[in-house]
Amino acid sequence: MALFDLPLDQLRTYRAPHAAPADFDAFWSGTLEGARSHDLNATFERVDTPYRTVDVYDVTFAGWAGQPVKGWLTLPRARDGRLPCVVEFIGYGGGRGLATDHLTYASAGYAHLIMDTRGQGSVWRQGDTPDDAPGSGPQVPGFMTRGVAHRDTYYYRRVFTDAVRAVEAARSHPDVDGSRLAVVGGSQGGGIALAAAGLTDAALCLPDVPFLCHYDRAARLVDSFPYGEIVTYLKTHKDRAEDVFGVLAYFDGVHFAARAQASALFSVGLMDDVCPPSTVYAAFNAYAGDKDIRVYEFNRHEGGENVHTLEKLRFLAQHWPAR
Amino acid sequence: MALFDLPLDQLRTYRAPHAAPADFDAFWSGTLEGARSHDLNATFERVDTPYRTVDVYDVTFAGWAGQPVKGWLTLPRARDGRLPCVVEFIGYGGGRGLATDHLTYASAGYAHLIMDTRGQGSVWRQGDTPDDAPGSGPQVPGFMTRGVAHRDTYYYRRVFTDAVRAVEAARSHPDVDGSRLAVVGGSQGGGIALAAAGLTDAALCLPDVPFLCHYDRAARLVDSFPYGEIVTYLKTHKDRAEDVFGVLAYFDGVHFAARAQASALFSVGLMDDVCPPSTVYAAFNAYAGDKDIRVYEFNRHEGGENVHTLEKLRFLAQHWPAR
Amino acid sequence: MALFDLPLDQLRTYRAPHAAPADFDAFWSGTLEGARSHDLNATFERVDTPYRTVDVYDVTFAGWAGQPVKGWLTLPRARDGRLPCVVEFIGYGGGRGLATDHLTYASAGYAHLIMDTRGQGSVWRQGDTPDDAPGSGPQVPGFMTRGVAHRDTYYYRRVFTDAVRAVEAARSHPDVDGSRLAVVGGSQGGGIALAAAGLTDAALCLPDVPFLCHYDRAARLVDSFPYGEIVTYLKTHKDRAEDVFGVLAYFDGVHFAARAQASALFSVGLMDDVCPPSTVYAAFNAYAGDKDIRVYEFNRHEGGENVHTLEKLRFLAQHWPAR
Amino acid sequence: MALFDLPLDQLRTYRAPHAAPADFDAFWSGTLEGARSHDLNATFERVDTPYRTVDVYDVTFAGWAGQPVKGWLTLPRARDGRLPCVVEFIGYGGGRGLATDHLTYASAGYAHLIMDTRGQGSVWRQGDTPDDAPGSGPQVPGFMTRGVAHRDTYYYRRVFTDAVRAVEAARSHPDVDGSRLAVVGGSQGGGIALAAAGLTDAALCLPDVPFLCHYDRAARLVDSFPYGEIVTYLKTHKDRAEDVFGVLAYFDGVHFAARAQASALFSVGLMDDVCPPSTVYAAFNAYAGDKDIRVYEFNRHEGGENVHTLEKLRFLAQHWPAR
Amino acid sequence: MALFDLPLDQLRTYRAPHAAPADFDAFWSGTLEGARSHDLNATFERVDTPYRTVDVYDVTFAGWAGQPVKGWLTLPRARDGRLPCVVEFIGYGGGRGLATDHLTYASAGYAHLIMDTRGQGSVWRQGDTPDDAPGSGPQVPGFMTRGVAHRDTYYYRRVFTDAVRAVEAARSHPDVDGSRLAVVGGSQGGGIALAAAGLTDAALCLPDVPFLCHYDRAARLVDSFPYGEIVTYLKTHKDRAEDVFGVLAYFDGVHFAARAQASALFSVGLMDDVCPPSTVYAAFNAYAGDKDIRVYEFNRHEGGENVHTLEKLRFLAQHWPAR
Amino acid sequence: MALFDLPLDQLRTYRAPHAAPADFDAFWSGTLEGARSHDLNATFERVDTPYRTVDVYDVTFAGWAGQPVKGWLTLPRARDGRLPCVVEFIGYGGGRGLATDHLTYASAGYAHLIMDTRGQGSVWRQGDTPDDAPGSGPQVPGFMTRGVAHRDTYYYRRVFTDAVRAVEAARSHPDVDGSRLAVVGGSQGGGIALAAAGLTDAALCLPDVPFLCHYDRAARLVDSFPYGEIVTYLKTHKDRAEDVFGVLAYFDGVHFAARAQASALFSVGLMDDVCPPSTVYAAFNAYAGDKDIRVYEFNRHEGGENVHTLEKLRFLAQHWPAR
Repeated sequence: MALFDLPLDQLRTYRAPHAAPADFDAFWSGTLEGARSHDLNATFERVDTPYRTVDVYDVTFAGWAGQPVKGWLTLPRARDGRLPCVVEFIGYGGGRGLATDHLTYASAGYAHLIMDTRGQGSVWRQGDTPDDAPGSGPQVPGFMTRGVAHRDTYYYRRVFTDAVRAVEAARSHPDVDGSRLAVVGGSQGGGIALAAAGLTDAALCLPDVPFLCHYDRAARLVDSFPYGEIVTYLKTHKDRAEDVFGVLAYFDGVHFAARAQASALFSVGLMDDVCPPSTVYAAFNAYAGDKDIRVYEFNRHEGGENVHTLEKLRFLAQHWPAR
Repeated sequence: MALFDLPLDQLRTYRAPHAAPADFDAFWSGTLEGARSHDLNATFERVDTPYRTVDVYDVTFAGWAGQPVKGWLTLPRARDGRLPCVVEFIGYGGGRGLATDHLTYASAGYAHLIMDTRGQGSVWRQGDTPDDAPGSGPQVPGFMTRGVAHRDTYYYRRVFTDAVRAVEAARSHPDVDGSRLAVVGGSQGGGIALAAAGLTDAALCLPDVPFLCHYDRAARLVDSFPYGEIVTYLKTHKDRAEDVFGVLAYFDGVHFAARAQASALFSVGLMDDVCPPSTVYAAFNAYAGDKDIRVYEFNRHEGGENVHTLEKLRFLAQHWPAR
Repeated sequence: MALFDLPLDQLRTYRAPHAAPADFDAFWSGTLEGARSHDLNATFERVDTPYRTVDVYDVTFAGWAGQPVKGWLTLPRARDGRLPCVVEFIGYGGGRGLATDHLTYASAGYAHLIMDTRGQGSVWRQGDTPDDAPGSGPQVPGFMTRGVAHRDTYYYRRVFTDAVRAVEAARSHPDVDGSRLAVVGGSQGGGIALAAAGLTDAALCLPDVPFLCHYDRAARLVDSFPYGEIVTYLKTHKDRAEDVFGVLAYFDGVHFAARAQASALFSVGLMDDVCPPSTVYAAFNAYAGDKDIRVYEFNRHEGGENVHTLEKLRFLAQHWPAR
Repeated sequence: MALFDLPLDQLRTYRAPHAAPADFDAFWSGTLEGARSHDLNATFERVDTPYRTVDVYDVTFAGWAGQPVKGWLTLPRARDGRLPCVVEFIGYGGGRGLATDHLTYASAGYAHLIMDTRGQGSVWRQGDTPDDAPGSGPQVPGFMTRGVAHRDTYYYRRVFTDAVRAVEAARSHPDVDGSRLAVVGGSQGGGIALAAAGLTDAALCLPDVPFLCHYDRAARLVDSFPYGEIVTYLKTHKDRAEDVFGVLAYFDGVHFAARAQASALFSVGLMDDVCPPSTVYAAFNAYAGDKDIRVYEFNRHEGGENVHTLEKLRFLAQHWPAR
Repeated sequence: MALFDLPLDQLRTYRAPHAAPADFDAFWSGTLEGARSHDLNATFERVDTPYRTVDVYDVTFAGWAGQPVKGWLTLPRARDGRLPCVVEFIGYGGGRGLATDHLTYASAGYAHLIMDTRGQGSVWRQGDTPDDAPGSGPQVPGFMTRGVAHRDTYYYRRVFTDAVRAVEAARSHPDVDGSRLAVVGGSQGGGIALAAAGLTDAALCLPDVPFLCHYDRAARLVDSFPYGEIVTYLKTHKDRAEDVFGVLAYFDGVHFAARAQASALFSVGLMDDVCPPSTVYAAFNAYAGDKDIRVYEFNRHEGGENVHTLEKLRFLAQHWPAR
Repeated sequence: MALFDLPLDQLRTYRAPHAAPADFDAFWSGTLEGARSHDLNATFERVDTPYRTVDVYDVTFAGWAGQPVKGWLTLPRARDGRLPCVVEFIGYGGGRGLATDHLTYASAGYAHLIMDTRGQGSVWRQGDTPDDAPGSGPQVPGFMTRGVAHRDTYYYRRVFTDAVRAVEAARSHPDVDGSRLAVVGGSQGGGIALAAAGLTDAALCLPDVPFLCHYDRAARLVDSFPYGEIVTYLKTHKDRAEDVFGVLAYFDGVHFAARAQASALFSVGLMDDVCPPSTVYAAFNAYAGDKDIRVYEFNRHEGGENVHTLEKLRFLAQHWPAR
């Protein structure tokens, strides 16, 4: 069936039933404090590319536990003054790719920093940041259940911490105007963007078809990957559902959304069977800041594609008009 | 099985067994003559985009039978003198998309014209050019067997004619240096690029995982789409195989390759079950100009992806060094 | 899931929510007027077959824009007086086939005319009628979105016009009693039969598992082909849903049903995921003439198969008893 | 891969490596002797149908062990003198269907008897003959491994015996000219036709894409059904391959072909992954009588469809010209 | 969708709507009376195995119509006194396997008899008991529609009779304490266990994800095999639904459950699309004896696997504590 | 196609073309030396189970880097003297399961130790040993490319080290006769067993359908999982094939086989598309010790199942006859 989730009018008011864990904020402030005990060490090394309109920098900064995390910073070559900045997070399985892969935001006049997702980048675009020991490189997933036995060891604790540090790294660059910073991303990147919006004071948040929201509903509604990794885990560890969803509650985009103050533009595909629309709307409806959502009725997880890229550029331009 | 076609050492010398039809060149010169009886009428209308590094123009020119064909021309905003130009053709089912979709070549300092494929652009990126009556718009394929009953009515006669006219349209622009023109494209776009290289004096040709080559082998080796449309047609029209392959011989990338003088960079995925490697090598091995090929052993039809984009930018830069 | 649409008791009363466009009738009377400005030119050329009980004629008549449309007329060899006539339309992707393919209705004593569907006949039975230029032949679909940008250019405008002209062609034959004429067909053929019943004064209408009904529900309920072509189109042309369904409203079997006066026998498969039962019932419940429906609970799109063939022969015999 | 079996030039000379079991003929003469110890009891009861060109009779005759086997006899209503007769066997899973299902051969002037396949007729056309106790009815397969533990209990021993008796039943009808009798069938029906040609003196044999040939190659080449049932059995009964193929040797179309004297017209689909072309050619190349074969290069198990129906009618007409 | 049936709170109260046929008990008492007219003839022949902790016996007893049915009896080698006994039935397509396959229950101190399912044992574990003539061996299914034309000839009439006789055979062994007997099994084995619980005075019943319950709902809810065999049958025999479900009513686990007095432990997988949870709950909620159920929320038809094996051992130990 | 790899007669002599890296032995002796710098710390804690014939112990020992690795030791309750011991490794994605899961070898009189595979045990049987930080638990794969950037960080370096330590742990138990020790396992477990046989002086080695052999051939022959994870990695990291296969060479069962002195019984499924038969034979043909292989012609990756379990018990009994 094409439209398989709630009808749109119910989606518009759908709320996830669970409150955040009582110590949600304490958990995250403690976690970030730990990360900040390491020096940020953000470095930006200029890379030679065939492009004449932008400059690209190889980024390294200290993420979770001070471990080096990679990224690319792309700046319009013709720039003067400090630029608004777009910090982008990546979908599941992909990495930062090559220096030449990221033209959109810089061509529109923004600084653009894309963060490698630790361990990822072996399925659809190359990554360079290991989650394990230095030198071990990225790998083919799964990541959804890595360390899920405890909130302290869960994989996304490290990723979300990296994301907060990526925002800080972007702001540390002399050409970036840290007061005009947007967090963006699609799918997993959208989930990370929500976390970053909940954990930082980014000005804008643009999550597309976000993943990592309302896990318990997703795992009962679809068995597609990556949510399906949770289903596989629970089908094997038959007595762990409550514990696992208890851990995942600390990483739920719904709860980050409820803490976010950035102005937001969401997008959702109503036929999305990877990140079902009700899980996206659960985050959207909980979102605390100003917000809007673009609905793509006949799209699956690809969402709004190039139409929505343009929507995002317009949204940015509306908040940060050219001077 | 992952590697299903000939092993690489046999691919390197594989030749398609058939010669071109005796009147192949006459057919095409007659066809182009017909198209050129209409004025080219190339217009370039500037479009507003959020980009600050490039200028985008809505292109219209007279293709087959003088019918209007759409495209986008993207130029680096900071330009002086006439630019080398990249004319790009599109993969099956896709269209020219939005004005904001094409940054790569212009960011590297080239003029870039992308041509709509008539009738297409309803599967993975929007198109705007009908193959039928004006106003009828693009549609979901098939196109592989449209008009295949006769070489005069076959769909790709119109498309390849459009492609030659697109090269002429690009050259008509005052900022384009027509002596430095490359034809590029992936899959169907690669097949069209081969046709354009065989029918024009373009300087460079960059076909990726090209489609529309060695039809009779492809249709017996794979039943994936789009070659599978030919299989479906012949399964129904059981006595038409000889006729159909006779018509397709006028549209075979192998024969265009044998006529091309442009310096070429091909790419091939050895696990490609959409455009099987032996059909790509049949074109490559027949190619008359200088040539090289990048082999992606563990890739299917996606081919070399961002790695090969960079290869292409390097290939262009090597022929047309920055001044 | 096997039964995926509404339960039978809800199907029995299900109504499509939309009224026909205000100028629906004007659009169609204008369209038919245009076609009738061309002479019908119906010709019937006797064909040699191995059969001894029937005579077969190769039919040509002027359809949309006066273009020649093919068909077969099969008559019982032993006949006297004018015969009741069955005009049949064909399912998606099929053509009129060979002269030897159509024995059922003539063996039961009826004249039987089967109409080629323009452009089709390359997937499961051969066709001979192009939709494009003469000589271009039939092709592998898609047809669902051909020309859908405007009601005037939409493919089924031409097909439904052909169908009306096919009825007129049948009536023009001296052995046919035009007052006893039935329009029949399965799937797409059923959809065309509904259109023919709405646009002519045929006496009987027998649509099986009809397609081309209640498009907007179908496209949201199933993504199987051919309705899935609409989904593919709208997933790419993300802003065109309202326009497209606006165009399709002029071609909706539900609205033709509401205008039909022929006595009808429908059939439906309750597990049909190609033409979902609610879209069939939407047409049935809107049908204005006398009507009955046979329900095949455990069948998919194959519907009632040979059981329903016999039902149809009985329904015909009941209206037109042997003399 | 589309063409997966041997290339056509190798198919043309391919021979199965195994000789028939030494007592193959003794086994079958003993088997038939047993069946003939029961009276044939062939009855033909006229059935009311809507047809005016043919008469249909409900057939019952004593098959294996004297058990009643059903069929339909269809005769042209306008007949004089004894008619050549076509005895048809049915593909796997199908049954004789309804009295109204069989017009082709009778419309061409032949007597046509179609035999129910015991136990079958619950997958794609209804059957009425049980393989088990009277009244138990037909069922959904499997049949390929029923009783395969011993040649005496194997299912097709009973089916092939029924087939020989069906030929005898046809000849017992007063309107049938037993010297002009053809055995025909597609897939399983083609395999049974080969058995009937090997065990009777039928004049013609028309097996289409025949099943039940060269089992040991088929089971190693494809795992599609129904040959796949043998694979499933041997995957479970891991030590039984030699025994099973030893039993199947008594039922192999290749060995029946080597004994057949009827003039034959075979057909084969070169992309047929149900009855792979090498197994069809193994029977064809072993066939002892006059023979010809139609090759459908781009067809799977559907084979030549309506084109081949016409071929068969022409083949019959060529042997038995209208008088 | 992962969870596709009713939500758990509705499952807990779901009741099948149909009462048992009025002569359900008479049918079964007559059937068993017939079987008991044959001597039970239970024999237990010791088999040599590599095991040192258990003794295994090759079991034969007279099942339906006195036909020999096979099994294995496994006893702990160190035993004294009469043992509680577990009689196990097998899932669809499997057989009793090898003598070495069954250690669990005997290792826990129970006598364990596993019964071959007649005809089965060719898909996933070898069987040795034919349903047809002696010597014909087991086969690849279908069995779901074998003999379904009448309750007297239906396949499961024979199987359930065998099951009752298996209980009697177990009790006939001198080391078995017949008052402490459990019937167990998964899937089809669970359905047979329910029948055995309804037709004998077994003390315990442990059906896992039972099959053969609430056929009419199952056939409308899923088309997976084996329930799908019923769908296939009814799609072909379009007028037989009422009759077939009328026959199946005599073999419905729901009605056996309503007659069972044994203390029961059920299990269910909430994502089970082979034996949907509502059909399992229909039996559970109808079950007349003491009962409990373990729910495995994220499991499909595999159910509780090793976790539930331990649950069953605990359930047995709780009823029959070690002495 | 069912049989897709080399034919059996070619398999019998097939050799992998590559020699082991020159420092293969040095790499492994250095690796093991590092592990042995940690105390083995093997503990065996008795667990309560419902079984009366065996005793089960929860095993912990120091594996790679001294990290605690879990397992179960199962002993026949009735034992005297030191027992021969079977050390078992587990297939991909599975864990040690529950204490009650392992009866076979202990029931046959052997000590049986099964080793958890670090990180695994979330797909088909529960595991308890993390590969990451303590407390992080097991997870859903992938593991095939974890750390594959360097031989020092590759995942299987840790696993194979654990395996050597598991052999040492088994030998440390007072009831185990370390001179009579077999390493066994299926699929990944077979690959680990080959590594253990190459790195220890185990007396017997029983690898079933072993994985982790001849990686470069496997990755080009099949794209099924888990070898497919390598394909996915190389499709993304397009320039890393040589490096990756260079790293994997240190972990190739072919090279361990060439160093093994234990008497071996292999098994292979000729239709195995997960661990293709040529990769199994590459290890078997390289195997240095006494060896035999059981061939299951019609089996896929399930291999010989219960038939081969019995073969293995017989092989063990033949080497270690009961005293």
